[in-house]
Amino acid sequence: MERPRHQAMAKNTNMRWRLPLICLLWEVAMIVLFGVFVRFSPEADAHWEEEKQEMNLTSDIENDFYFRYPSFQDVHVMIFVGFGFLMTFLKRYGFGAVGFNFLLAAFGIQWALLMQGWFHSFKGGKILIGVENLINADFCVGSVCIAFGAILGKTSPVQLLIMTLFQVTLFSVNEYILLNLLHVKDAGGSMTIHTFGAYFGLTVTRILYRPNLEQSKDKQGSVYHSDLFAMIGTLYLWMYWPSFNSAISEHGDAQHRAAINTYCSLAACVLTTVAFSSMLQKKGKLDMVHIQNATLAGGVAVGTSAEMMLTPYGSLIVGFICGIVSTVGYVYLTPFLESRLHIQDTCGIHNLHAMPGLIGGIVGAITAAAATEDVYGKEGFIKVFDFTGPYQTRTPSVQGGFQAAGIMVSLLMAFAGGALVGAVLKLPVWGEAAAENCFEDDIYWEVPEDEESDVYHMHNPDKPASP
Amino acid sequence: MERPRHQAMAKNTNMRWRLPLICLLWEVAMIVLFGVFVRFSPEADAHWEEEKQEMNLTSDIENDFYFRYPSFQDVHVMIFVGFGFLMTFLKRYGFGAVGFNFLLAAFGIQWALLMQGWFHSFKGGKILIGVENLINADFCVGSVCIAFGAILGKTSPVQLLIMTLFQVTLFSVNEYILLNLLHVKDAGGSMTIHTFGAYFGLTVTRILYRPNLEQSKDKQGSVYHSDLFAMIGTLYLWMYWPSFNSAISEHGDAQHRAAINTYCSLAACVLTTVAFSSMLQKKGKLDMVHIQNATLAGGVAVGTSAEMMLTPYGSLIVGFICGIVSTVGYVYLTPFLESRLHIQDTCGIHNLHAMPGLIGGIVGAITAAAATEDVYGKEGFIKVFDFTGPYQTRTPSVQGGFQAAGIMVSLLMAFAGGALVGAVLKLPVWGEAAAENCFEDDIYWEVPEDEESDVYHMHNPDKPASP
Amino acid sequence: MERPRHQAMAKNTNMRWRLPLICLLWEVAMIVLFGVFVRFSPEADAHWEEEKQEMNLTSDIENDFYFRYPSFQDVHVMIFVGFGFLMTFLKRYGFGAVGFNFLLAAFGIQWALLMQGWFHSFKGGKILIGVENLINADFCVGSVCIAFGAILGKTSPVQLLIMTLFQVTLFSVNEYILLNLLHVKDAGGSMTIHTFGAYFGLTVTRILYRPNLEQSKDKQGSVYHSDLFAMIGTLYLWMYWPSFNSAISEHGDAQHRAAINTYCSLAACVLTTVAFSSMLQKKGKLDMVHIQNATLAGGVAVGTSAEMMLTPYGSLIVGFICGIVSTVGYVYLTPFLESRLHIQDTCGIHNLHAMPGLIGGIVGAITAAAATEDVYGKEGFIKVFDFTGPYQTRTPSVQGGFQAAGIMVSLLMAFAGGALVGAVLKLPVWGEAAAENCFEDDIYWEVPEDEESDVYHMHNPDKPASP
Repeated sequence: MERPRHQAMAKNTNMRWRLPLICLLWEVAMIVLFGVFVRFSPEADAHWEEEKQEMNLTSDIENDFYFRYPSFQDVHVMIFVGFGFLMTFLKRYGFGAVGFNFLLAAFGIQWALLMQGWFHSFKGGKILIGVENLINADFCVGSVCIAFGAILGKTSPVQLLIMTLFQVTLFSVNEYILLNLLHVKDAGGSMTIHTFGAYFGLTVTRILYRPNLEQSKDKQGSVYHSDLFAMIGTLYLWMYWPSFNSAISEHGDAQHRAAINTYCSLAACVLTTVAFSSMLQKKGKLDMVHIQNATLAGGVAVGTSAEMMLTPYGSLIVGFICGIVSTVGYVYLTPFLESRLHIQDTCGIHNLHAMPGLIGGIVGAITAAAATEDVYGKEGFIKVFDFTGPYQTRTPSVQGGFQAAGIMVSLLMAFAGGALVGAVLKLPVWGEAAAENCFEDDIYWEVPEDEESDVYHMHNPDKPASP
Repeated sequence: MERPRHQAMAKNTNMRWRLPLICLLWEVAMIVLFGVFVRFSPEADAHWEEEKQEMNLTSDIENDFYFRYPSFQDVHVMIFVGFGFLMTFLKRYGFGAVGFNFLLAAFGIQWALLMQGWFHSFKGGKILIGVENLINADFCVGSVCIAFGAILGKTSPVQLLIMTLFQVTLFSVNEYILLNLLHVKDAGGSMTIHTFGAYFGLTVTRILYRPNLEQSKDKQGSVYHSDLFAMIGTLYLWMYWPSFNSAISEHGDAQHRAAINTYCSLAACVLTTVAFSSMLQKKGKLDMVHIQNATLAGGVAVGTSAEMMLTPYGSLIVGFICGIVSTVGYVYLTPFLESRLHIQDTCGIHNLHAMPGLIGGIVGAITAAAATEDVYGKEGFIKVFDFTGPYQTRTPSVQGGFQAAGIMVSLLMAFAGGALVGAVLKLPVWGEAAAENCFEDDIYWEVPEDEESDVYHMHNPDKPASP
Repeated sequence: MERPRHQAMAKNTNMRWRLPLICLLWEVAMIVLFGVFVRFSPEADAHWEEEKQEMNLTSDIENDFYFRYPSFQDVHVMIFVGFGFLMTFLKRYGFGAVGFNFLLAAFGIQWALLMQGWFHSFKGGKILIGVENLINADFCVGSVCIAFGAILGKTSPVQLLIMTLFQVTLFSVNEYILLNLLHVKDAGGSMTIHTFGAYFGLTVTRILYRPNLEQSKDKQGSVYHSDLFAMIGTLYLWMYWPSFNSAISEHGDAQHRAAINTYCSLAACVLTTVAFSSMLQKKGKLDMVHIQNATLAGGVAVGTSAEMMLTPYGSLIVGFICGIVSTVGYVYLTPFLESRLHIQDTCGIHNLHAMPGLIGGIVGAITAAAATEDVYGKEGFIKVFDFTGPYQTRTPSVQGGFQAAGIMVSLLMAFAGGALVGAVLKLPVWGEAAAENCFEDDIYWEVPEDEESDVYHMHNPDKPASP
């Protein structure tokens, strides 16, 4: 039995030709481009046996695979399970949350391998990919997952795929400007991933503003078990964030340090999130939205500085502050943004990614500016900031300035790019749902009859129950 | 309050003596056999300190543990959480799915350590086990988990344990024929795990055909949250499949390459699965069954060739095809197999493992036959295909032929073994449930009273509710 | 709409000032103490580049990070997802289970880094932390998570934080006595983590005895999906336990061996748990409580001996026994403890951690006492038991005696510490819930209106439903 629903008259949400077409065309494009451009990096190529001899490597364990693969898998879990399940908190949008996240990420990593490859791994006309490229592709897609959080429940899968195509492209350009032109450090992506991704998503959702969204207000909340599903996402993000921030740092002490700093920041963040969640509610009860999200802000905010000598207590301070900022944001800022600025931010990415991302960029700039050879050691100083080649003479304070410039560039790219993409997505041809059907899986998914629908019958005792 | 149910008159499903007896007897047998045969491999033995000096190893990191343990844990998660939760999609069979999978896998890995040990790690009258043996045991059990998917909900735990005993034995024989006698490459097990496991399970379910299964049709579907639980399984299988296909490859470039190829194939597979899931439904809505299963076919289908120079675009092509084949299989083939061939395949393993497994075997044969010293390098060529010793003179095309032979042998073993085991399981003494009680946890588990049962009351308003 | 509930008259459970105050004050204390004491270990410090040269290390992979980080992440998952979700089995306490576990663990790891650091990593006035410290902090918090299992559902978050502060302190003292003064081996913490943590928690819950707890009996059970959430916890604990027991063992063969022993013990444990779960129920049905918990006892019980030459069959025997002991404990001992000794043990930690922990300590003592140079090799013998320096002349049988002494010390510390902490927690100022409100998230959490509450309405057909 179909339960009655107000089907939007004017909206055609049937995906039958649009979605298959875009998926198949783009995947064919990926195959062609991969065929022309993508090959294995030397360490993944069967020629490595010979390469090893030339490089005088005596052991297979020197392969970058063993330095990074465990971190890669942790990052992979964060993108697919972490972000996917974090967004299942809505009572009737679990399929869309985890399923569309799966779709856009699976497409996005392919396109990111190409885009980032052209910028960073292009040798002799070929993109040579290894495990570090896989991590970077996941990182890039992470910024799309973040933006998805702002528009969750309000867009069609076709819109999401289009956004992914554009955002991955813009991400890669922005990343190239920061890392190569400004020579900025940003191992965990406070600027490139979080600041860019969040403000991009917020701009898109602003442009896609739906004045009648309160028509689906009853579906914007959670139910008991959907909140537990979301906690799976939260915990995996929280636990693996040290891997995220250390995944592409230099081998050795830098990876080690980045993991420790992130671990500390996240631990502190939980305490202040709980404190403010309780404090800001009349009866002192904790709010699952805060626990699910604000506890993660500490990981975002050490994304730039984790591999620097931020030190454990410095990390605690950053986490301490971000738990507060993020929780206060959920309570006061999100409603304000929605009512005054017409920014409808489903998951509150402004609190979890945008503000902590900015803080992370600033902390990174300060930490870089404050660096001394005393603290880092002579060689460590050069290695951490890569003050080599054309950057040999760059001083910490100059580096700090460039780091700050990186924040600004990321913001500009996010606003400009988000505006452009928002405009494209506003075209009335992509099959988005009507306002009263937002946050409802039934529009794009075959949803099983279940307990809940039985319960619905109950409220209409006149109708015969037909399970 | 017990909710009313049609208890089968003729069937005795009480496990009270049968299940404990088989568990205890078999575990005692394991202890005795381990006592007689199983010891630590040199790298896990306390003598390694001395061994290291003899082998002139300067570092502890050369221990195989550090090359393979992270992959082992990923594989371990796939077997227990991946397969276990993937099968929780049924509305009333979550305990059986995750619990029986747990039971059969825990027994299966012990028996596999012995069986595979006798064939591959037998030295001086002892089986010497290390981390690679643990991975191989998990692999072997993976094929049982696959077969379990075909008979899910229709068999007693005693039947599952008996099937596990037989299947692990036959798996090990088949694996020995392929890897040692035919000298076939199959690192991710397209043939040994997927083709063998799936056709074995399909044969078993054919023999256990239940003509009255539509009596439990109302329980064969999912509910909203059971579909989300299943997505946990899907995502862990999908994310960790690169670890699966690379777990026992040679150290260095082979592991690295296998992970990249699998990653690419899986990414492409998601796009075509989504495309065809939407295209084949009138309203263009996505079907969770496809997303949960067909997205994984790309991992199955590069199981043989992942460690070869399949290249990223080759992997994309394989994934592209398998997403289509698998989704189309769910829509058209599964109903056909059930109605015409009387193959009742609960999880659709024919679409997820059987067909993609065959494709994987064929892709492996072609990739091997097409290998050249130019592509692999002189040493890489020998190393990847292990063209050493008696196989020094084997050519790629001959290798391709042997690979093809491996597919045929796996199929034969699966059909013959499945027929044998099916016949054993058909004996009316193992406590299987009646047709109307299939897909129902309540037969073998103490199931809590819960919301759902409250809902049931509601439909009988005459009865007093007694939660 | 608020559903009617008997609010305790006398109890003030409002956390609004107590919880924020304790969180903020303690986190500030952490920052100050970290600022004064905590720095990076050499391997995580930017000076490592220079250190490496002095130590003549040629490769970055010799950094302890690469030996232990994958195990650390597995342990991390066990603490936060494993323990957290294992405790979500209660129908209305999922938020508290996973959320309070998150809170206490996030605080506990910080305090553990300090406490354990002062005892074990204090050099030149500073605590130098690296990846091994992170693992040890997680271990320490593991003992708090265990104790939490005994009082689950009956305490306020403030009480939990106070317990964490005390228990981490006492844990560290006990650990110091065992590892440094008695020179006992306990890599996986059968004594320090499980025996101590469990008897500590049981003493606390004895002192907090609630005579009227049957008033909330209807909430002490599970519902169908809460049991599946709990299985997520079970499986992650089960799968990653080999990482737990090997995480801080010596590099090389010891880690390798510890993982294999644990894997074997856990596998055997599943079989005997299933056997006895079925055998002890009239209709032979399996009980989810046993599958969720007793299957893990095998991991607990090899916590001391896993890195020794317990051998695979020895591990199977230990697992075999513990599955039985633990399951029988759930059926007979838990009700006895509650009715006769007034020990209300919500999760049955007596069966999962206390008894198996004791067995683990004893097995460790026996295995140590039985050690010979023949079995371990001359160097292995010294390395495994660290018979160096002042312990050069210690014999295996003497070591066995000290191991046994370690059990006794852990028990004494647990009883004395638990009594002290229980007395503190009994003060009527910490906001604990009344007996009839135990096992109910609604006291400390904002709980969404959901299907279940709709169902509740149904039972009162006179009231208007207002979802």
